Amino acid sequence: MKTGIIGTGRIGKVHIQNISMFVPELEIKTAADPFMNEETETFVKKCGVANVIKTAEDIFNDPEIEAVIICSSTDTHSKYIIEAAKAGKHIFCEKPIDYDLANVHAAMNAAKAAGVKLQIGFCRRFDHNHRGVYDVVHSGRIGDVHLIKISSRDPEPPGIDYVKVSGGIFYDMMIHDFDMARFLAGSEVVEVYAAGAVLIDPEIGKAGDVDTAAVTLKFENGAIAVIDNSRRAVYGYDQRVEVFGSKGCVRNENDIPNTVQVSDAECTSTENTYTVMWDRYTGAFVSEMQAFADAVVNDKETPVAGIDGLYPVMMAAAATKSAKEGRPVKISEVEIR
Amino acid sequence: MKTGIIGTGRIGKVHIQNISMFVPELEIKTAADPFMNEETETFVKKCGVANVIKTAEDIFNDPEIEAVIICSSTDTHSKYIIEAAKAGKHIFCEKPIDYDLANVHAAMNAAKAAGVKLQIGFCRRFDHNHRGVYDVVHSGRIGDVHLIKISSRDPEPPGIDYVKVSGGIFYDMMIHDFDMARFLAGSEVVEVYAAGAVLIDPEIGKAGDVDTAAVTLKFENGAIAVIDNSRRAVYGYDQRVEVFGSKGCVRNENDIPNTVQVSDAECTSTENTYTVMWDRYTGAFVSEMQAFADAVVNDKETPVAGIDGLYPVMMAAAATKSAKEGRPVKISEVEIR
Amino acid sequence: MKTGIIGTGRIGKVHIQNISMFVPELEIKTAADPFMNEETETFVKKCGVANVIKTAEDIFNDPEIEAVIICSSTDTHSKYIIEAAKAGKHIFCEKPIDYDLANVHAAMNAAKAAGVKLQIGFCRRFDHNHRGVYDVVHSGRIGDVHLIKISSRDPEPPGIDYVKVSGGIFYDMMIHDFDMARFLAGSEVVEVYAAGAVLIDPEIGKAGDVDTAAVTLKFENGAIAVIDNSRRAVYGYDQRVEVFGSKGCVRNENDIPNTVQVSDAECTSTENTYTVMWDRYTGAFVSEMQAFADAVVNDKETPVAGIDGLYPVMMAAAATKSAKEGRPVKISEVEIR
Amino acid sequence: MKTGIIGTGRIGKVHIQNISMFVPELEIKTAADPFMNEETETFVKKCGVANVIKTAEDIFNDPEIEAVIICSSTDTHSKYIIEAAKAGKHIFCEKPIDYDLANVHAAMNAAKAAGVKLQIGFCRRFDHNHRGVYDVVHSGRIGDVHLIKISSRDPEPPGIDYVKVSGGIFYDMMIHDFDMARFLAGSEVVEVYAAGAVLIDPEIGKAGDVDTAAVTLKFENGAIAVIDNSRRAVYGYDQRVEVFGSKGCVRNENDIPNTVQVSDAECTSTENTYTVMWDRYTGAFVSEMQAFADAVVNDKETPVAGIDGLYPVMMAAAATKSAKEGRPVKISEVEIR
Repeated sequence: MKTGIIGTGRIGKVHIQNISMFVPELEIKTAADPFMNEETETFVKKCGVANVIKTAEDIFNDPEIEAVIICSSTDTHSKYIIEAAKAGKHIFCEKPIDYDLANVHAAMNAAKAAGVKLQIGFCRRFDHNHRGVYDVVHSGRIGDVHLIKISSRDPEPPGIDYVKVSGGIFYDMMIHDFDMARFLAGSEVVEVYAAGAVLIDPEIGKAGDVDTAAVTLKFENGAIAVIDNSRRAVYGYDQRVEVFGSKGCVRNENDIPNTVQVSDAECTSTENTYTVMWDRYTGAFVSEMQAFADAVVNDKETPVAGIDGLYPVMMAAAATKSAKEGRPVKISEVEIR
Repeated sequence: MKTGIIGTGRIGKVHIQNISMFVPELEIKTAADPFMNEETETFVKKCGVANVIKTAEDIFNDPEIEAVIICSSTDTHSKYIIEAAKAGKHIFCEKPIDYDLANVHAAMNAAKAAGVKLQIGFCRRFDHNHRGVYDVVHSGRIGDVHLIKISSRDPEPPGIDYVKVSGGIFYDMMIHDFDMARFLAGSEVVEVYAAGAVLIDPEIGKAGDVDTAAVTLKFENGAIAVIDNSRRAVYGYDQRVEVFGSKGCVRNENDIPNTVQVSDAECTSTENTYTVMWDRYTGAFVSEMQAFADAVVNDKETPVAGIDGLYPVMMAAAATKSAKEGRPVKISEVEIR
Repeated sequence: MKTGIIGTGRIGKVHIQNISMFVPELEIKTAADPFMNEETETFVKKCGVANVIKTAEDIFNDPEIEAVIICSSTDTHSKYIIEAAKAGKHIFCEKPIDYDLANVHAAMNAAKAAGVKLQIGFCRRFDHNHRGVYDVVHSGRIGDVHLIKISSRDPEPPGIDYVKVSGGIFYDMMIHDFDMARFLAGSEVVEVYAAGAVLIDPEIGKAGDVDTAAVTLKFENGAIAVIDNSRRAVYGYDQRVEVFGSKGCVRNENDIPNTVQVSDAECTSTENTYTVMWDRYTGAFVSEMQAFADAVVNDKETPVAGIDGLYPVMMAAAATKSAKEGRPVKISEVEIR
Repeated sequence: MKTGIIGTGRIGKVHIQNISMFVPELEIKTAADPFMNEETETFVKKCGVANVIKTAEDIFNDPEIEAVIICSSTDTHSKYIIEAAKAGKHIFCEKPIDYDLANVHAAMNAAKAAGVKLQIGFCRRFDHNHRGVYDVVHSGRIGDVHLIKISSRDPEPPGIDYVKVSGGIFYDMMIHDFDMARFLAGSEVVEVYAAGAVLIDPEIGKAGDVDTAAVTLKFENGAIAVIDNSRRAVYGYDQRVEVFGSKGCVRNENDIPNTVQVSDAECTSTENTYTVMWDRYTGAFVSEMQAFADAVVNDKETPVAGIDGLYPVMMAAAATKSAKEGRPVKISEVEIR
């Protein structure tokens, strides 16, 4: 299926390369990026992309192209989703759809009205370790879900300029964990309580954000989730989940580069987890695109639908409000329809 | 040092046996229990205890006895602490001192006024795995504490009759984790948010309690802790802690009966954790008594002082109030002076 | 660098795909296989190979082709090495060069005389876990090597027809471990003692082979290695190494598909190792070809030279003789020059 | 049952203390040691031993004493076994019975003739981790035993003076592993091949011994075992076993002081294993004595019988001969009847 991609930054390049190597069902015919430079163009062409252009229009107007992958900046996501939907093309869009809930709804509605498939790029659902936990939960092996624990810590905070426009830790970082919590809970969240602190960099506090946070979620089915985030884990990219249920408990550990353990006179040591997100989730990016290809080529439901793009944004809105007002906030307080 | 023990139920017997075997500095001269039966008497005497009696009075009146170990029911703790203090005897008292904060203060003040040592039986501080985490935190190796995660799950809920008089999950079960959180944070808690659910047994809900809970603690130093509790983990007694700091992360796993792993055609499996608290904390009970002996014989500070008995009760009060009112509760709201 | 490949069976296809995806320095211009079928031809062409032919001659005669990858059946290896060397092309040859030591020498000499590079396909040296152990040993961190332990067990014995022509377990299976032992020891083996048994399939015994074996190696530097092999590990592909030295010990574990662990009422379980060799050594096949590209393009020593192809065959010869005669056999007994 | 103990060195004291604390069926009435000093006497009496004497005679002559525990030096074992047997007393004797096979037979025969029970102190059979492996093997869960791997490494070599009289590494150190191999194999060894090296201390070589060794055992049932020993593992007392069978594989790890793991900027580390044998096998010493008490009090078979004392000595004899002559040695070559 001929595909167009909008945005050839870091994540765009990853998708282009993965599709060329591992997703035979899709063929990227056109890549568009207003900031396309020579180096990128060379890379993209080497991956077998026929057309490299500067504006997205040609993708929407190309009748051969049946699917669009949106990897542009967040503020353009909903606009491009709407345009792609109007052009009748299936859509894969990087997360989040938008931070404005009205825009999210508009994008979702456009896709729905056009009858095209929409998949949101919550890649962690496709990570082998997180997926493995989900599979166990989903199989019923640990019974009903009672408690979910998610730890998610980045190796380094982003630059302060980015922090200022990021929407805050709940929109920018914990949004992945909100998605993961829903994915694992099999239920919708009804209330959010967020505790935040500035413990890493006072500049982050001055920018109105926190760098350390713990959030409690209450789900419709009674399950409770706790998520902790830190902007700086000196030992690397740390992402683990645990689900405790009526018949048992399932959890995962981080991947590490190898299984080597060394015992010397002092201690026994192993390598730390990866420090680079792209290394940690290499396989997840491949799998999510294979899932998208499977959905659009074989006319299946996308595994991360529009609603899955909506809820984490509402959770982020509620968490932000909770941290600010020092009280639990119901999803219904931030919801619009 | 000659010692008296009040209460020869399960925990009392454990202390008697441990002292006789592993704490040479102490000698239990007298054991008192109003419900003393023949079997217990035989056991206690075999452990070398000279006098086995029914009332605590003789212990307080015996000038040879310099220390008292209180293992009676909770409602008698503060009363016996006050009597022992008046008699000038050092005191080891099982947790909690009392659920009524005024009684806790009275007991603490009595010990202070009498100039006797008071140690509270928060045994988990002496567990090799938890102590190992504390030692790493305390050494400064992981820097400033940012996040604390504590999971604490029991194999089985207590009988519903006990639940009704237990004071609730926060007083009865999570109180150990409140102590652990303070121990690891190195700071006092200022606010508590508790989310509770009835997911295991509706009878627990009818009794006004919850069986599943997640609590968020904010500390003076900015650190945040999340604690989760469940009354029933089918795989055994599950107690793990993790402390994340500016320079790294330290965590522990449960003890298991052996290190054997079996790989067959289906999977690789290991044994589960212990299902009996006494097996899990065998060493902790010995160590806490050795620490008490060290404090009273060598005139050192007790490692779990009266204040360490007070704070967890205040935290339990705040958590109970928070779960009931659906909002974060400050310690100052429940504090008395 | 333009490259030709001879043999497009399973391993040939893996190299073609890996080169097209991950080894930009090499370009496979021509693929030759006398048994080339349509399906293979389609696959090979999709990987960007220009010419798909039936005989190797055209590769040797093509002046544009500078390197040859030999993936044909073992009995043709030495012949093709000699022809490629005469044609002045660098050579990557799958292991083993040949089971006849005279042929191995002839091939090595041809490459040497022609001044072309020769790399043998002992892929395990490039596996992240084994390489990780090597790196620790090589760094000096565990001091002098004293003991090496290698376990290597396959999920299933090959078909009995294959067993009959395989040369036996020491040539066919343990040869990888002989290479690994030398790689880790940093010294040459001087004596081999092999104990074998038929415990899995009596047919293997009737074919004159064993299915279970333990071999002891003595090295020049005094180090001792023990290797165990089994033709059938029901739990999957099991390959672990351990090196014990004067300053410590390093070992690795198998890769498993994910890090998930499940605790239910019975036990705590994790997934087993891979059951398919290609999954276990995915990365190793890529890395060895990248190393070959690096050697031929940048004129470096190949990391697995001709001598590394010779020694394991001598060790297999000695082990076979040892198992047959029930005594340790010196390498000098089987060596030719 | 009233018991006498001969020898109050390190291991004797451990048995005395363990019996007083954990083995209620036995009561040590008399302890005899020609080198009894005041400190030891004080300790022994504190453990409740009534009589502390210098010669063993009084124990044999005391009609009240029904069982004897022999912890004296190895050269006196067989003599004391014979005397105790003649006196009609059950016998627990530290390993080995004797290095001279004729003496071993004499001792075994004496016990048999007298109809008294004889248990040999191979304590590792009672270690929770080794016992756990045995239980899995014994249950049939991993099917028929094909391969056994045992690693056994001490933190430090003994003093050179001890090495000279120790009988060599196979008698002194690997004898435990010979016992373990038989225990796990469920079959008798028929042939032994030993490779030894002097890699730690040349003085050990001058004393005619080796400090590093790997031994291959062939069992009657076809199973093969490999054992490696080192006199110096800088990271502590390292003892692991693995049994591979037709239906799976079981293995254990060392105990470590706690389960704490620390991740900092460099690596993730855990504590090393114990460096002191008494810490590693604390529970094993208790369990073996409880098993002895159970055997003598309840008239059961001892779990480590005379034959279990005989075989490891024959295996040590064969291994010593093998290392010296550079060839596999059959047990039948060293056996006497």
